Amino acid sequence: MSKNVIGVGLLGMGTVGRGVYRILTENRSGIEQKVGVPVEIKKILVRDTAKNRGVQLEEGVLTADVDEVINNPDIDIVVEVMGGIKPALPYALKALKNGKSLVTANKDMVAEHGKELFEAAEANNSDLLFEASVAGGIPIIRPLKECLAANRIQQVIGIINGTTNYMLTRMSKEGLDFQTALAEAQALGYAEADPSSDVEGYDAARKLAILASIAFNTRVSLNQVYVEGITRITAEDISYAADLNYVVKLLGIAKESEAGVEVHVHPAMLPKTHPLAPVDDVYNAVFVSGDAVGDVMFFGRGAGELPTASAVVADIMSAARSKLKHVPGLYNCTCFDEKPVKSMGLTSTKYYIRLNVDDRPGVLASIAFVLGNNDVSLASVIQKHTTGQAAEIVLVTHRVLEQNLQDALKIIKELSTVNEIANVIRVEE
Amino acid sequence: MSKNVIGVGLLGMGTVGRGVYRILTENRSGIEQKVGVPVEIKKILVRDTAKNRGVQLEEGVLTADVDEVINNPDIDIVVEVMGGIKPALPYALKALKNGKSLVTANKDMVAEHGKELFEAAEANNSDLLFEASVAGGIPIIRPLKECLAANRIQQVIGIINGTTNYMLTRMSKEGLDFQTALAEAQALGYAEADPSSDVEGYDAARKLAILASIAFNTRVSLNQVYVEGITRITAEDISYAADLNYVVKLLGIAKESEAGVEVHVHPAMLPKTHPLAPVDDVYNAVFVSGDAVGDVMFFGRGAGELPTASAVVADIMSAARSKLKHVPGLYNCTCFDEKPVKSMGLTSTKYYIRLNVDDRPGVLASIAFVLGNNDVSLASVIQKHTTGQAAEIVLVTHRVLEQNLQDALKIIKELSTVNEIANVIRVEE
Repeated sequence: MSKNVIGVGLLGMGTVGRGVYRILTENRSGIEQKVGVPVEIKKILVRDTAKNRGVQLEEGVLTADVDEVINNPDIDIVVEVMGGIKPALPYALKALKNGKSLVTANKDMVAEHGKELFEAAEANNSDLLFEASVAGGIPIIRPLKECLAANRIQQVIGIINGTTNYMLTRMSKEGLDFQTALAEAQALGYAEADPSSDVEGYDAARKLAILASIAFNTRVSLNQVYVEGITRITAEDISYAADLNYVVKLLGIAKESEAGVEVHVHPAMLPKTHPLAPVDDVYNAVFVSGDAVGDVMFFGRGAGELPTASAVVADIMSAARSKLKHVPGLYNCTCFDEKPVKSMGLTSTKYYIRLNVDDRPGVLASIAFVLGNNDVSLASVIQKHTTGQAAEIVLVTHRVLEQNLQDALKIIKELSTVNEIANVIRVEE
Repeated sequence: MSKNVIGVGLLGMGTVGRGVYRILTENRSGIEQKVGVPVEIKKILVRDTAKNRGVQLEEGVLTADVDEVINNPDIDIVVEVMGGIKPALPYALKALKNGKSLVTANKDMVAEHGKELFEAAEANNSDLLFEASVAGGIPIIRPLKECLAANRIQQVIGIINGTTNYMLTRMSKEGLDFQTALAEAQALGYAEADPSSDVEGYDAARKLAILASIAFNTRVSLNQVYVEGITRITAEDISYAADLNYVVKLLGIAKESEAGVEVHVHPAMLPKTHPLAPVDDVYNAVFVSGDAVGDVMFFGRGAGELPTASAVVADIMSAARSKLKHVPGLYNCTCFDEKPVKSMGLTSTKYYIRLNVDDRPGVLASIAFVLGNNDVSLASVIQKHTTGQAAEIVLVTHRVLEQNLQDALKIIKELSTVNEIANVIRVEE
């Protein structure tokens, strides 16, 4: 029997939920043309059905009873936009078990419980789509799964947290310090009152776990992602970076080579000529290298009501088409392999090191000696800000093994002439 | 009956064909994992079966008989990578009539005969996929059709010709003139002996017709695209552009507003801060604005053996999946509407105008008078290079109607104090 309408149920009516509602309403006719039948919101789960949602809703569409969404025979596609793990995960699993296709924008849930969700989708022959969970409206999940499917993906490097990118842009362009940039981001609504998920890198880590899993066809779990936030980045580091022709970005980096898979989030210096370097403010971008396609980049808004909802509604339309054609699950789990993730000590890159030292002869020599002993060779040295007894030295290494660098730093820290290792920032080229 | 192999036939074994062969061979196991069954090249149509193709081919795979490809029961998917219209089009149509899915990289064929091809695909319930026809390996057709499907697309602006982008980059960075840049591009194999299709803008126009058709859900034919090439761009214009904080690019621009659809290819000045501005050398990028997603951009290599083949093989994999699930045609023609395309005179933008004039008082006033009479207001004026009796004036207008500007220029050309309208370049903001 051919369906003449696709019923949608929303779990949640926050920012993204409202955006989904608005797009499905405002672009209704175009969406119907493309899907073939109308796509209609039947029920929306909210805590308080009396609260004003800022959009005109049909009488009776709001419900506080989850079963009216996930157990509703008129609903083909359940859209989870409530966020968090509980109760989003049990609701999502139950919806899949009931034969609903699931569309979600929930990076926490997908990053931490992707396996359970995919197994439930497979078992019930349903679609599980999550384009909006990474980089908001920017198409990246589907392009990786479909458009770049012919490639062995070698690396994915992303600016996938808008809050920190805004802060680093302000620190870079206006010389703001971290706290001022954070206060500004909070005032603008870009950062939450408790900003730790953004500034500590965890938000980016969840998105990177999802991207890496798809890129390398192996499940990368959140605890396999090495994470370092931007809280120790100073205006001074950014200024040195500029002198060295670099910009500082919070990057999610996932690479696969014969030596294995590596997945890490941390601030990094990028050459000003890198395609990711001009990606400023709240914009996101994902840079992908494949053995056939070479380098491609996807750029746009990584958050916000309508950009995120744009991705959610595209997934709804895709799930609708596969419901209509009775072919759900065409692009579900692609984690065919089980690949180990390298420990951070086994990765290699270039490093920027800023040191406060005593201003006397031989200090640089003693530092260089320790680095050399640990197979860390230097690409450049800047010595600045000499103020009588103290001096600041900035070193940039060649590409070296992280473990060797860490071993060297432990010794350098103990040198009597070294007052402080002020910062160490990776340099991605 | 479930198939246990997907058979592929190639029409043509040039650069892209060889790339397709290499990817299907070298990434065979990953492709099989993703598709579910092996994807095998059964036959390749070539003119000369004895010629060395630079890859190891199985005995008997080459054929000079097109029927061994398009009439072959072992072949599910026909891949047209011969280029041009004849005989590519009749072969493609016959393949579709025989129930084969068709994957093509042929922008000429899709831009000029898309309607026939889509009708044949619909009639025979086959896939027609052409990701590689625009911007090589960069995912753009599928993202527009699927990932951005929830949006009303407002504009698509592309750097979609690598040859001219390379030339303009060299002119901009090294101050080369047009002829020197062209000779360099030819020496590097980026430009053909007859470069007219690239430098006159026709290659970009074909790609833009395809992009606009998908973006606005209406068939835009090649003769509806206004086309101007880069042959009149001088190093001097590029230098003035830099002074004004612009870069010069050959852009394909398609816009839809309430006032209608407009589709044009021409050189244009772009602010240095625009996301397309740093796209240099042979790279391509497509910038898309939608009512929900805002601005997104897709960046990468727009040509070359493996990048283009990356897109072709992704389409092969997609066609294979829909063959296996018996659901071809899931994403075929989306030209639901018939929208007229505005004449160029009804478009509006800012303009850069470079004039050689007599160096005497009142000249600028007389030019400004004519512009004002035609509702063309000025944003800035630069006067330079005064050499005794002659002067050069550069004007930048506000946003004005093209027809008004052209009317004014006709009169300005006849002013006794104006020696030459050296160039007029649109400014896109």
